[in-house]
Amino acid sequence: MRIHHVGIAVSDLDQSIELYRSVFGAELLDRMANENEGLEAAFMRMGDSEVELMAPTRVDSPVGKFVARRGPGLHHVAYAVTDLGKAIEEVRAAGLELIDAEPRMGMHGARIAFIHPKSAVGVLTELVEA
Amino acid sequence: MRIHHVGIAVSDLDQSIELYRSVFGAELLDRMANENEGLEAAFMRMGDSEVELMAPTRVDSPVGKFVARRGPGLHHVAYAVTDLGKAIEEVRAAGLELIDAEPRMGMHGARIAFIHPKSAVGVLTELVEA
Repeated sequence: MRIHHVGIAVSDLDQSIELYRSVFGAELLDRMANENEGLEAAFMRMGDSEVELMAPTRVDSPVGKFVARRGPGLHHVAYAVTDLGKAIEEVRAAGLELIDAEPRMGMHGARIAFIHPKSAVGVLTELVEA
Repeated sequence: MRIHHVGIAVSDLDQSIELYRSVFGAELLDRMANENEGLEAAFMRMGDSEVELMAPTRVDSPVGKFVARRGPGLHHVAYAVTDLGKAIEEVRAAGLELIDAEPRMGMHGARIAFIHPKSAVGVLTELVEA
């Protein structure tokens, strides 16, 4: 596995994109809203990985609650896997709790599944088929 | 820049290493204690990046306080830079606050500097010369 992306919850998406672009030299790959999740995301290329900046569009969305509770900051880490179905089987066989029992479509058209933080040393951990 | 590593604060280092090795397929590169920082760290290879698992060796160390306050979880993200001196100048010129005004030696013999979370969308951000 490799690090596919790191997810960061922010309050001001434009300002955060500008920070990552001008100071960290990241390239803005894509930007999109997900009304279902109540967030707007910007995908910034950092080498072979990405930083996903996520700003809430509603205070009661999961990211909105995260920012209200803890402020902006590190939200999740995602690892790339070649076969998500197999990865989910292995994760389940190891006794870890999945948030997504089955693969679902992520924002980028790739199949994803989240592992519950309590099964992954407190880290909301995403698997991305890539 | 690329993602050099993601730092995760944990309470049980052996258990966390085993999780990352057996479930996420990461290779244990190195393991060392840093009494100055009050932590023991394990460096796990994930593709071209690493996951740094950090367990406190003292409850009053920075990582010990982090775990006591928030529980295990995502602690920091580190980006690789080729010239740390130049990177520090650019970060300072952009108005960001550095925790380390000058490069200092990290655990792996590489020069590092931390940017204050308040200057980096709430994320403790490390620059590593690599």
